[in-house]
Amino acid sequence: MRTLPLAKVYQLLEPGPVVLLTTARKGRANVMTLSWHMMVEFEPPLVACVVSGANHSFAALRATRECVIAIPARPLAEKVVQVGNASGDDLDKFAAFGLTPVPAEQVAAPLVAECFANLECRVRDTRLVNTYNLFILEVVKAWTDPKQKQPKTIHHHGYGRFAVDGEMITLKSRMR
Amino acid sequence: MRTLPLAKVYQLLEPGPVVLLTTARKGRANVMTLSWHMMVEFEPPLVACVVSGANHSFAALRATRECVIAIPARPLAEKVVQVGNASGDDLDKFAAFGLTPVPAEQVAAPLVAECFANLECRVRDTRLVNTYNLFILEVVKAWTDPKQKQPKTIHHHGYGRFAVDGEMITLKSRMR
Repeated sequence: MRTLPLAKVYQLLEPGPVVLLTTARKGRANVMTLSWHMMVEFEPPLVACVVSGANHSFAALRATRECVIAIPARPLAEKVVQVGNASGDDLDKFAAFGLTPVPAEQVAAPLVAECFANLECRVRDTRLVNTYNLFILEVVKAWTDPKQKQPKTIHHHGYGRFAVDGEMITLKSRMR
Repeated sequence: MRTLPLAKVYQLLEPGPVVLLTTARKGRANVMTLSWHMMVEFEPPLVACVVSGANHSFAALRATRECVIAIPARPLAEKVVQVGNASGDDLDKFAAFGLTPVPAEQVAAPLVAECFANLECRVRDTRLVNTYNLFILEVVKAWTDPKQKQPKTIHHHGYGRFAVDGEMITLKSRMR
């Protein structure tokens, strides 16, 4: 894993990929699948996400105020769905689905070795947690895997249908 | 345009496409480009979005509490970037870039005829507007264009680079 400048984090999340979110509480790590996230600020990178109160990860995120957002590419799609279908209440999903937790640098939640990017996050604002389960996170450290070249991310359309990244186009733009 | 059940709205936004956001204030419509949005609730569909205070649309959205989220497919990519590069302060972007405003049913902001889906929205929560420019919207009416079959959306990676939807895959999933 190689450090990614925090100013570039938005380029990973803005396109809307399905991601994994890891937490760690009382020495036990968990991982869930997440599509409801967006960028909120470029730098320091702030990210909003909605984690259902029905998820095991919700309580861990609220209690520890730390998580990792790990971004999988196409070869992990089947595992990403398996993670989404299972509950951390009674299962070690890392072991069950062959994902490798790796210690992070600034948070207790683990990185996911198989993902091409990992973002260490701290909860920054909980004002909308009670109403919408909406957390505002700050990305405090970002990693990418230089061995995964031009990773194709996946985008959930509901009920297990995903669009895989296709053609990349570049248009003359003044937008960051 | 054909009505889309509100329960299906999340399938359009969850994949993270670049969208257009229209507003109307004092008889004048405007349109901007937006990538910072996410689903917050399935039904009624709630959507969070961040609209920079530097955008002409920010003041209109805050004052009128109404907007339309219009979703463009690949053929509109060049216009979407032109919209993103221009300011509504001094330009009628609909006329300038050949987009057609169409009256909505429940809000004053217009639909965009060329987009394959249009979501009429009302502002539901402004608690995070002052801190992050983050609005919570409720989708009150949704439209799709049945003539646009299997539209390919675009996903912004920064500086005018976009991933176009590629292969669609379906995996066995219990996730909605």
